[in-house]
Amino acid sequence: MTTNAYPLLQKVNAPADLRAMPRGNLKALASELRNYVIDSVSQTGGHLSSNLGTVELTVALHAVFDTPYDRIVWDVGHQTYPHKILTGRRERMSTLRQLDGISGFPLRTESEYDAFGAGHSSTSISAALGMALAAKQKGENRRAIAVIGDGAMTAGMAFEALNNGGVADANLLVILNDNDMSISPPVGALNRYLAQLMSGQFYAKARDMGKSVLKQVPPLLELAKRLEQQAKGMVVPATMFEQFGFNYIGPIDGHDLDSLIPTLENIKGLKGPQFLHVVTKKGQGYKLAEADPVAYHGPGKFDPAVGLVKPAAPAKQTFTQVFGQWLCDMAAQDQRLVGITPAMREGSGMVEFHKRFPGRYHDVGIAEQHAVTFAGGMACEGLKPVVAIYSTFLQRAYDQLIHDVALQNLPVVFALDRAGLVGADGATHAGAYDIAFVRCIPNMSMACPADERETRQLLSTAYAQNHPVCVRYPRGAGVGMTPLESLDGLPFGKGEIRRSSATKKIAILAFGSLLYPALAAGEALDATVVNMRWAKPLDEELLRQVAAEHDAIVTVEEGCVMGGAGSAVGEALAAAGITKPLLHLGLPDQFIEHGDPAKLLALQGLDAAGMEASIRARFMAP
Amino acid sequence: MTTNAYPLLQKVNAPADLRAMPRGNLKALASELRNYVIDSVSQTGGHLSSNLGTVELTVALHAVFDTPYDRIVWDVGHQTYPHKILTGRRERMSTLRQLDGISGFPLRTESEYDAFGAGHSSTSISAALGMALAAKQKGENRRAIAVIGDGAMTAGMAFEALNNGGVADANLLVILNDNDMSISPPVGALNRYLAQLMSGQFYAKARDMGKSVLKQVPPLLELAKRLEQQAKGMVVPATMFEQFGFNYIGPIDGHDLDSLIPTLENIKGLKGPQFLHVVTKKGQGYKLAEADPVAYHGPGKFDPAVGLVKPAAPAKQTFTQVFGQWLCDMAAQDQRLVGITPAMREGSGMVEFHKRFPGRYHDVGIAEQHAVTFAGGMACEGLKPVVAIYSTFLQRAYDQLIHDVALQNLPVVFALDRAGLVGADGATHAGAYDIAFVRCIPNMSMACPADERETRQLLSTAYAQNHPVCVRYPRGAGVGMTPLESLDGLPFGKGEIRRSSATKKIAILAFGSLLYPALAAGEALDATVVNMRWAKPLDEELLRQVAAEHDAIVTVEEGCVMGGAGSAVGEALAAAGITKPLLHLGLPDQFIEHGDPAKLLALQGLDAAGMEASIRARFMAP
Repeated sequence: MTTNAYPLLQKVNAPADLRAMPRGNLKALASELRNYVIDSVSQTGGHLSSNLGTVELTVALHAVFDTPYDRIVWDVGHQTYPHKILTGRRERMSTLRQLDGISGFPLRTESEYDAFGAGHSSTSISAALGMALAAKQKGENRRAIAVIGDGAMTAGMAFEALNNGGVADANLLVILNDNDMSISPPVGALNRYLAQLMSGQFYAKARDMGKSVLKQVPPLLELAKRLEQQAKGMVVPATMFEQFGFNYIGPIDGHDLDSLIPTLENIKGLKGPQFLHVVTKKGQGYKLAEADPVAYHGPGKFDPAVGLVKPAAPAKQTFTQVFGQWLCDMAAQDQRLVGITPAMREGSGMVEFHKRFPGRYHDVGIAEQHAVTFAGGMACEGLKPVVAIYSTFLQRAYDQLIHDVALQNLPVVFALDRAGLVGADGATHAGAYDIAFVRCIPNMSMACPADERETRQLLSTAYAQNHPVCVRYPRGAGVGMTPLESLDGLPFGKGEIRRSSATKKIAILAFGSLLYPALAAGEALDATVVNMRWAKPLDEELLRQVAAEHDAIVTVEEGCVMGGAGSAVGEALAAAGITKPLLHLGLPDQFIEHGDPAKLLALQGLDAAGMEASIRARFMAP
Repeated sequence: MTTNAYPLLQKVNAPADLRAMPRGNLKALASELRNYVIDSVSQTGGHLSSNLGTVELTVALHAVFDTPYDRIVWDVGHQTYPHKILTGRRERMSTLRQLDGISGFPLRTESEYDAFGAGHSSTSISAALGMALAAKQKGENRRAIAVIGDGAMTAGMAFEALNNGGVADANLLVILNDNDMSISPPVGALNRYLAQLMSGQFYAKARDMGKSVLKQVPPLLELAKRLEQQAKGMVVPATMFEQFGFNYIGPIDGHDLDSLIPTLENIKGLKGPQFLHVVTKKGQGYKLAEADPVAYHGPGKFDPAVGLVKPAAPAKQTFTQVFGQWLCDMAAQDQRLVGITPAMREGSGMVEFHKRFPGRYHDVGIAEQHAVTFAGGMACEGLKPVVAIYSTFLQRAYDQLIHDVALQNLPVVFALDRAGLVGADGATHAGAYDIAFVRCIPNMSMACPADERETRQLLSTAYAQNHPVCVRYPRGAGVGMTPLESLDGLPFGKGEIRRSSATKKIAILAFGSLLYPALAAGEALDATVVNMRWAKPLDEELLRQVAAEHDAIVTVEEGCVMGGAGSAVGEALAAAGITKPLLHLGLPDQFIEHGDPAKLLALQGLDAAGMEASIRARFMAP
């Protein structure tokens, strides 16, 4: 791209450059910024709709606030491309979400302007409140600003922070970026309520206020007005956010810099918790994305003039699709099945299920905690809940998994998508810990299918159990092992030998999709290769047999070594009184950033060559 | 106690007996029930204040609803003694919270009237909503009722459930048991808001409505009124709960059966999500508890005529007290220290810290998720947050621990109280999993002090690190090792040999307070005994040395064997290429119910005799 297309933007290497510009230039700057976002995302892929929605808000925030001294905490973080472009990372946008490139989310190690990392939703108010109260304690006049979407606002964590922040004597500003969209279409009472706030006269009146009154009322008068209201005491506050103790301002048009900048300047002078309701449109300014913000939520590369093009040949079936198909087939067969998602209908492959079984589909909002206990309540009544949840999002419902489901031994199936490395989304989304944190819970089981076919089979096995079971599978496509039509399962808790060594030196025990590189390594090394299939319960009989017949055991998993399935093998051998040389291959004790998943796995020595090298180094040293 | 004191109560062996009684008897029954609660708790210890607050509500619920067909889901569950007494467990109250006795919380395996187990707070609306929607799907006319306190309502999970429930076409009734108290005094915006709702004219008017209008308005008229309101569309609902889509009724006096019963009967006929605001008083009817509900929250045995008596000799110092003292001492030395608690000021030993350092004390409400990320935000600004949190409550903030603190490698200290078995509170509160679920997270460390002195020292060590560290310690008192006054720490990640064997056959590696029984077992067996002190990082140098010198390794911990510290030892030995017989002693893969903690440990073979027997059986068989 030529810099001529971006005459203003190319002058902004830091927000101070933007603040030094005549205010009259900012609209043109925002327009360039929007084009730059479209241009760069079309070349790298990434998040689009959400970033087009925050262009003006980002310009206004950096124009009014003294960043990085003032802290902007972006919730989720997939709307921060305009922020990245304005904070010195314009030229690095071409490396977005690639190995050694910049992250798709805010990252403290990447820029001093990224006040708090994100990836998962609904953390921003908590972090910003912590920063605001820290500023107070240190006597600093710093502002802390949380920018949170209406979807993220439905998560309980945001309410916990509002409940705390509304009584805190802190200069906290919460900006609700209300675009009536999370990744999936919005559900729940809060979104309905926000729509009420925005509709009709109320909105018009508030907008007028934003444009006229707010510009004229000096901060002190605002404060006096507020104190007077509080003095009345018995007045029950009008909006939910006032009920939480915030000074509610808005809704205002989040694409109108003439509203945004004066409003923010007024708020900047106010003390105590402030709540600004900003209305934006996902995909704003790019017609194709405005028309279909879900499709443009996270597109791959595309031609901006043409838009997304359906691939000519259908792509390889993903694990997500295998799950979605299984869910429909099992639901058709069993009336008791209910499908539950915490706001990830598309990501979890539940669009078709929703269409075919609307009465048995429950999108509970961004609410993992609630999703799991809600499933527990349904299981008590004899239904068969299937909770589709990403591995890292189950971390959000860990206590509910233990306290509400496992302790009561309720038959809930957890379909854990994105187990293992996830590629472009990086460390926040990498499902590296689920085997470790699930297997330590009594009554829980954990299946690790090796491919598409086994995923369908093990989902059926899980579904047939009378206790809770997780089935973990990775992001994307597998080796291409077409699932069978049947809904028959595989034996519960049983593995299988996939390759028998003649020399019986090494046995490789693989958990999950790394079975395939393990088979290749086994071929090269003449090792026995076992498809363990279950991290819990372990197939101890098979394990004892294999251990008795081989000199050394190697375990392989796409998950953390610490406490993982390999560790379970070690425990089981110890319990059986078997002493054998052991090598655990898996993810190391460090967070792994974004990049191509195959490259990342290879870097961790988890491709066939890496496994072979590790095993040779340990057991076949010259 | 003679049954003469309870002429009505003794006739109630199930709620059907209560429903068969003339309504005019119910006040007298409630009075007997209250006395029975005081009488039995005075003899067994347990929760008192909360149970005295729910006497009339419990009578009214069982009088109006068709339990167990209708489901009552009690939040937290420490207010269910009246419920237990009325549902066939009257005579078993003398076994409360004792080994093989009845639980202090609702338990599905204990009674069909216990619709959903509890212990942790804020789960009830989610579970009841699941049950209500299951009833709808199955075409059953069942009611599902969640009874939740105002403290529990501050947790995000409750809001997630309200957000989902408010738009659900389900016969869900949420009863807010508003006693303006959680275990600690209430904090946060929601409690302030509820106080506003209750105060002044609003309350009076609503109360009148409860007494007059509600009795007369037939359900259909109610419905029509509601539909009319909805038809207006643009009306912004008045109370927060209406904003969430619930039909809000109340507040009404929760100790007045003449209000409660007619109101509940009216509500029973209404369709869709209902919200009843009931005002009760913790300790109601027992003057001493009314005056000090915190002290009577969970008393031991006492004489009802006298009340709680301060013990003549001070009890042995608890680990909680050691933490509280350390917190004050370190805060006095370092201005950067801030103390954070999710509504457990008393339980976590922070009363003195709150008094001495009010500006650096943050009770964020029952909000573990928020507490951890809030701490992260403060750490970003150079403060040194110490989060005091029970081991099982950290499960509520697991994703925040990973995503907000560990991934950003922020220096937050987590003081994990109640690590290990907790006795009377049972499985819901047993901190069995923390070593497993924390050690798999990169950047995290986990210290396991063996006694009071080490607890203080390792808290200092943790505080001095520039990354997140957990320090876990058990409930109650230790061996009586008086802490030193100094704030010096112990070396990071280093253990020590406490006993050296002459024969060098067995080395016992102890993590935490089980060091002391391990020393006794080591004495009996002539085993080397190592105080490992750190589950992560492991002292691998020491481990390699000990492994090289001994024939077999035994690990001991008061935590789950699966994925625990012993498992870490296995991994480290495997990584070092050391092959040795290993025996892991710890908590088994099952939930362990309530009972005397020493007895429970002995039952699991984790006293000195049990350890000795296990080691002999494995390594010294004849």
